[in-house]
Amino acid sequence: MSNLFLRTLREDPADAEVPSHKLLVRGGFVRRTAPGVYTWLPLGKIVLENVAAVVREEMNRIGAQEVLLPALLPREYYEATGRWTEYGDTLFRLKDRRGADYLLGPTHEELFTLLVKGEYSSYKDFPVILYQIQEKFRDEARPRAGILRGREFHMKDSYSFDLDDEGLRRSYEAHREAYIRIFDRLGLEYVIVKATSGAMGGSASEEFLAIAPSGEDTFVRSTGSDYAANVEAVVTPAPPARPIEGLPEARVHHTPGTPTIESLVDFLNGAGLGRTFTAADTLKNVMVKTRAPGEKDWEIVGIGVPGDREVDMKRLEASLAPAEVALLEEEDFAAHPFLVKGYIGPGALQANKIRYLVDPRVVEGTAWVTGADQADHHVVDLVCGRDFTPDGTIEAAEVRDGDPAPDGSGTLYTARGIEIGHVFQLGRKYTDAFSLDALGPDGKPRRITMGSYGIGVSRVVAAVVEQSHDERGIIWPRQIAPADVHVVGTGKGEQIEVALRIGRELEERGVRVLVDDRKGVSPGVKFTDAELLGIPTGVIVGRGLADGVVELRDRATGERSEVSLDSVVDTVVAIVNG
Amino acid sequence: MSNLFLRTLREDPADAEVPSHKLLVRGGFVRRTAPGVYTWLPLGKIVLENVAAVVREEMNRIGAQEVLLPALLPREYYEATGRWTEYGDTLFRLKDRRGADYLLGPTHEELFTLLVKGEYSSYKDFPVILYQIQEKFRDEARPRAGILRGREFHMKDSYSFDLDDEGLRRSYEAHREAYIRIFDRLGLEYVIVKATSGAMGGSASEEFLAIAPSGEDTFVRSTGSDYAANVEAVVTPAPPARPIEGLPEARVHHTPGTPTIESLVDFLNGAGLGRTFTAADTLKNVMVKTRAPGEKDWEIVGIGVPGDREVDMKRLEASLAPAEVALLEEEDFAAHPFLVKGYIGPGALQANKIRYLVDPRVVEGTAWVTGADQADHHVVDLVCGRDFTPDGTIEAAEVRDGDPAPDGSGTLYTARGIEIGHVFQLGRKYTDAFSLDALGPDGKPRRITMGSYGIGVSRVVAAVVEQSHDERGIIWPRQIAPADVHVVGTGKGEQIEVALRIGRELEERGVRVLVDDRKGVSPGVKFTDAELLGIPTGVIVGRGLADGVVELRDRATGERSEVSLDSVVDTVVAIVNG
Repeated sequence: MSNLFLRTLREDPADAEVPSHKLLVRGGFVRRTAPGVYTWLPLGKIVLENVAAVVREEMNRIGAQEVLLPALLPREYYEATGRWTEYGDTLFRLKDRRGADYLLGPTHEELFTLLVKGEYSSYKDFPVILYQIQEKFRDEARPRAGILRGREFHMKDSYSFDLDDEGLRRSYEAHREAYIRIFDRLGLEYVIVKATSGAMGGSASEEFLAIAPSGEDTFVRSTGSDYAANVEAVVTPAPPARPIEGLPEARVHHTPGTPTIESLVDFLNGAGLGRTFTAADTLKNVMVKTRAPGEKDWEIVGIGVPGDREVDMKRLEASLAPAEVALLEEEDFAAHPFLVKGYIGPGALQANKIRYLVDPRVVEGTAWVTGADQADHHVVDLVCGRDFTPDGTIEAAEVRDGDPAPDGSGTLYTARGIEIGHVFQLGRKYTDAFSLDALGPDGKPRRITMGSYGIGVSRVVAAVVEQSHDERGIIWPRQIAPADVHVVGTGKGEQIEVALRIGRELEERGVRVLVDDRKGVSPGVKFTDAELLGIPTGVIVGRGLADGVVELRDRATGERSEVSLDSVVDTVVAIVNG
Repeated sequence: MSNLFLRTLREDPADAEVPSHKLLVRGGFVRRTAPGVYTWLPLGKIVLENVAAVVREEMNRIGAQEVLLPALLPREYYEATGRWTEYGDTLFRLKDRRGADYLLGPTHEELFTLLVKGEYSSYKDFPVILYQIQEKFRDEARPRAGILRGREFHMKDSYSFDLDDEGLRRSYEAHREAYIRIFDRLGLEYVIVKATSGAMGGSASEEFLAIAPSGEDTFVRSTGSDYAANVEAVVTPAPPARPIEGLPEARVHHTPGTPTIESLVDFLNGAGLGRTFTAADTLKNVMVKTRAPGEKDWEIVGIGVPGDREVDMKRLEASLAPAEVALLEEEDFAAHPFLVKGYIGPGALQANKIRYLVDPRVVEGTAWVTGADQADHHVVDLVCGRDFTPDGTIEAAEVRDGDPAPDGSGTLYTARGIEIGHVFQLGRKYTDAFSLDALGPDGKPRRITMGSYGIGVSRVVAAVVEQSHDERGIIWPRQIAPADVHVVGTGKGEQIEVALRIGRELEERGVRVLVDDRKGVSPGVKFTDAELLGIPTGVIVGRGLADGVVELRDRATGERSEVSLDSVVDTVVAIVNG
């Protein structure tokens, strides 16, 4: 440490909010170069490489082959898939000296598809999985939390190419299992959540979320099982249909001044109807417009949800994807006078051939209070399957803590996580864009199907720290720690000499060592630094040296013990080798 | 190879001119993604990492510490040193979503200076050497020759920070020796040439050039020693001064119509002067203007060179750097009527206080034919030190094959090389720009002095191929070869099974193996591929298998020998371990 390019800090950086950001900066692992852009100092570089090594080993184990693509990519390929524009402001765009458009790669689906197309053409060539570990660039609107969400970051991205859906399923499963091995080896606590496709297009998709309160991703878990899912992917259990016979007739009521659910419920409960209403008895109809990709015209759609729930626009968007969706604006209402704001009911929608999609809880035989399509009027006891027939169901209502888990195991509660991995059955979006075919044994071309899989290598470093630290510093899992052992020589020259000697002997035994051989630095400062740096095993060469003993410290448990100088190397080697 | 993501090509790529470009593409090591932007396929990635590993080992050996900086850098730091504009079109510039200016790092002097300034402040902290191996971006006007001159490329750049000039000299020397070890280990034939400073500013500088006819850099070597230098750095040996006494008097001659050296020599030799003149007897005065950095006004300077040589503008620029230089234009001549074009002599320059710098061969006692400062007139026998006194000498005349070597060892001849490394005593240009000081033991700040050192890691891969190939393919040095041994199973199933078994046994012995286990591929195609891929040792499992023998092939020498199947693994292990 007397030569190591390292300065630890006692103060948290001013812009740091989450533990990993604070500790990685204070411990001298990273330094900020620009917003969302970081430099890796010597100890940080070692940790980053250790994470990459685990990822590389497990990718090689499933037969993935490592390549290295450039970051500077020509516009034309991303134009071909529409991502040049779809990415919006998140894409870093630039021009070369000739004025040609380039981008800095955010992910490399296009380039890998073209790479495979350039080399492979026969069914005998497939399947193939390629990967790289490389810098990615995304101009995040709000880079935050140090390396948790950067604008230049390190990612392992891999891509599978298969002849058919069954092959894709196998490649996906191989990745899923490799990811489980990787994150297990890294000592991370994580969940695998069903995810929606997002902007990438495609079908099956799961995210690996490291559980951490600082995480940006919200997900729901079940109290009764290991079910976990993105909020967008939660499937609402539908109650069974009920008999319609014997239900009271639908009746329109004059409900003056009740454009909101709350005002409506208050009015009804004061109207002497002989029963009590809650918001859950009402059916709220939210009008949206939607447009499929490439389409010019918008379609107006009614979304019916129980009145005690808001429409969650992210869930609605996920349900309608890849079509885009927006709320109706004033001019839309003006153009469709049968839509009476605050009093819209199924009647006007169906009469005017407006598509009407409802929450899965709106099943046959359920009775609702809803709009009567004229100002200040609602209808009570409008029964699904008798008085109206929706065009289908849709996942659009908000998910709440206490909702039943889709697997029936218990109730849902929300938690937060850091997305550290993503596995994705892309299907043929990219292979269609570039016509990637393999000639089958019958001489006919078969369109290749594709998966894409990512691990945020630099983000994993932060996620580990989020989960593994205390108020004094980082607690590195041995697998990715910057060293196995931190030998601290305190005080005078002799202790430092012995510390250096122990360090050399441990290195000869294959142990990775950091020796604190700084002179003129107090033992207290050295111990504080050691706890901040978080190397798993500490060896303190201090006053006990006079009696031939040194102290062992375990960073994770805080346990301390004395061993004789003669046996310390053997003891430490045994600890390191587990 | 039945699974390897590899397709070899029989045809050279259409845009390839140099051997490394042709062979690296044909052998499936790299693929072009955009002009000057390449993808590394699996075998190429291994070679690139092997080169990086050698570089890393030797950098670590001199105590350099590895870090990793981003590629995306904010404008402000490069603005502070002037490089934001100095780099011109070679810099990739871009804006982020907020409109802030960024660049893609071409080299990282600014950032390393700031990094050290952020961590270190005391004389006790120094010296320190930091390095990284990372992608660099330069928008070359003419990206060419595959990965020899790319726009996105891999570079090791390191930076030394020292308290004084003596420290800088030591850091420079340590790098120079590390580079010698690196390029020796890579098996490269190279020269170390004295270089001029170029655009970086600073003092001592040397380039490592891999000797190759395809190289972009011209340099001169001596027939009698290992002297080598950039043409800009060649020092012309000055002949000894001669006695002036007894030399004929200077005499002005009417030489009508002789504005060129050729016309002048012809005229003189036909003028009956009783002796024969050559162009080397004439003194040509070339008028230039020069301006120091930050100055507004130009100074006119006369450059006198023997008439048989042209002024080499690159040598002239290097001699006057950091001042800029340009030839006089018509309007300059018009403004100085004493300059009579085609007939300018030392007389008018000295009479008008124009600085007059001459070639080192113009020593005291040499007599010249030169302009007489009036149209159609020259002066013969104008003697240096008697009739004119230059203001100094300058290296501006062209260097030619056959010129005496500066070290007196023989004569110079020109050769071509690929710049693979550069060591550079930067001095205080960057530490001045960012006020990087260390507090001395006396409590006073000392300005740090800096060196910068680069190795073109991806370019080295190409340079190795330029030097090590034949008409059939690449001949990799073992140190960086994609594998040690290429085991080729020909023909039917049994030979392939045996090839795979030999491969497994070799791997267990720590040998890196590529097995050609492709079925349905002819032996001829396999041998052609093996020679193209260039792995040092080949093991052919072919027809001899029936008699229990396999063939060993040495890619470099072409030698072939038979060994028994039983002993092949031991034999190959012995070859690999040298």
